[in-house]
Amino acid sequence: MSAPKIITLPQIKAALKNIDVFTDIENGFAAYARGEAVIPPVGEMLFEDPPGELHIKYGYLKSGAYYVVKIASGFPQNFKQGLSTGQGMMLLFDQKTGVVKGVLLDEGYLTEIRTAVAGALAAKYMAPKKIACIGIVGTGLQGKFQLEHLATVTTCRKVIVYGRTPANRAAYPAYFVDTDWEIELTDDVAYLAKNSQLIVTTTPATAPLLQADWINPGTHITAMGSDTIHKIELDPAILGKADIVVVDSLSQSESRGEIYQSVKAGTLNRADVIELGQIINDPELGRQNDTQITVTDLTGVAIQDLMIAKAVFEGVE
Amino acid sequence: MSAPKIITLPQIKAALKNIDVFTDIENGFAAYARGEAVIPPVGEMLFEDPPGELHIKYGYLKSGAYYVVKIASGFPQNFKQGLSTGQGMMLLFDQKTGVVKGVLLDEGYLTEIRTAVAGALAAKYMAPKKIACIGIVGTGLQGKFQLEHLATVTTCRKVIVYGRTPANRAAYPAYFVDTDWEIELTDDVAYLAKNSQLIVTTTPATAPLLQADWINPGTHITAMGSDTIHKIELDPAILGKADIVVVDSLSQSESRGEIYQSVKAGTLNRADVIELGQIINDPELGRQNDTQITVTDLTGVAIQDLMIAKAVFEGVE
Repeated sequence: MSAPKIITLPQIKAALKNIDVFTDIENGFAAYARGEAVIPPVGEMLFEDPPGELHIKYGYLKSGAYYVVKIASGFPQNFKQGLSTGQGMMLLFDQKTGVVKGVLLDEGYLTEIRTAVAGALAAKYMAPKKIACIGIVGTGLQGKFQLEHLATVTTCRKVIVYGRTPANRAAYPAYFVDTDWEIELTDDVAYLAKNSQLIVTTTPATAPLLQADWINPGTHITAMGSDTIHKIELDPAILGKADIVVVDSLSQSESRGEIYQSVKAGTLNRADVIELGQIINDPELGRQNDTQITVTDLTGVAIQDLMIAKAVFEGVE
Repeated sequence: MSAPKIITLPQIKAALKNIDVFTDIENGFAAYARGEAVIPPVGEMLFEDPPGELHIKYGYLKSGAYYVVKIASGFPQNFKQGLSTGQGMMLLFDQKTGVVKGVLLDEGYLTEIRTAVAGALAAKYMAPKKIACIGIVGTGLQGKFQLEHLATVTTCRKVIVYGRTPANRAAYPAYFVDTDWEIELTDDVAYLAKNSQLIVTTTPATAPLLQADWINPGTHITAMGSDTIHKIELDPAILGKADIVVVDSLSQSESRGEIYQSVKAGTLNRADVIELGQIINDPELGRQNDTQITVTDLTGVAIQDLMIAKAVFEGVE
């Protein structure tokens, strides 16, 4: 049996430069919504001291060659040791024999990328045509990656960035030197919400950050921070007043994310939610005009992990 | 961040020669039964073409340094390609940061070993003192590993081995050349059951192999083949007539294994089942005399994976 390919983070970053993961992940969501993937429920484990959480996401495309297992953890206190909060790896196995083919030692990086790509896909299909200003809530790594990836789907280059912590807020623009992004920083999330047509929330908040009466007609919100039963970024009234509510995974939204919270709060009917992949398959299910309010809730799906892991595995020299 | 230790199968096999995994796994079960471990439900995924199944087992000891994720698949048709049915790997992560420490490319081997060790532990605590003959049901790898590991807990060296397939049966003794095992082969499982005081079943059967009226007083049965909702090796009446029924994991027995089947069939009350770790902690809960019938049902627990992965990781040169 041949040894698996062990792929390190520098190799992964180099490979990503030559790969179109956007289209791969778009195709993955589309296949997932057509029922062509097998994606079991997310595995989850919590840690108390220090606090942390682990997600195991796994699955395969029935027509594919591989199955993926993605292990991703979040330990918020890692910064004290100079370590990234997110850690983990992605594994590719032969779907016909179980033999391991690839060990992608991504240290959580590919999870950040595939999440940002999902945000860009949500914007491609759901954002209004005219965007005068983007709003990014959260100044962490994902707050940067989301904006970076939006550049591929919109010509807008004006952004308001909300951050709670002055130092993190002040540090945000450095990531975008030598780009044409015009960045305004704020500590007023209401100001951001009222002045943005495309809002992306990227925080681990456990109480709503965005309130419903701040949201103007013609706004799209992508909420990607909430991926557990406890996290929430949006006032449930926002999903109640939204014209279209989209999710990356209907099954996962039964137990995690904004949709879980809004259904529990009684502001949203599950029957009114559709999957991002359905809209990719039939864009007419998406935004109809520039006055609708739309929300996309991303909890992160193994199909994204499968598509990006396969692309990197096959793209590495 | 330092790179994880990548450990290959030859390195693992070499390390195992210098490690006492028996005591490690014994201690692991004991800690698990004392509530000192966090072990989420088993992750499971099925494949249709070719048929296969995947188990993901993961967890940690609260007082420990690592968390483990164990990926193990079974693809029965692998033999056509000269591959082992079992494949997979074990992963060790820093429990405080999520940083990956060890990638154990065991190709399913450590799962086989820790399963055989659990069988030996079950025999140590539950088998009658006087064993005239051991019965092994199944001639696969686990049928060999179980017998091999029983040599550490009993002085009996007489064994009857049942196999369905003549060629596999005939091939069984070759594994035990240069040992003192006296091996009798049979195609009559009733004969095996009636003449053995310690029976180990190691098959992927989906219909009972052992019938209740074949089981004499003073018999211990360890059933390790059934680890899903569909598999079953023992007539549920056996668990009904058993004096003590032991399981490796009470929580896992709610959805898999012989205990799940017998509770469903109405022959067993869940309240009458105790965990192997409870008996390790208090051996008086185990066998009282040489006339009781006892059953241990092993579904395989992440605590075993954690203990063996840690021992190998720390034992590799």
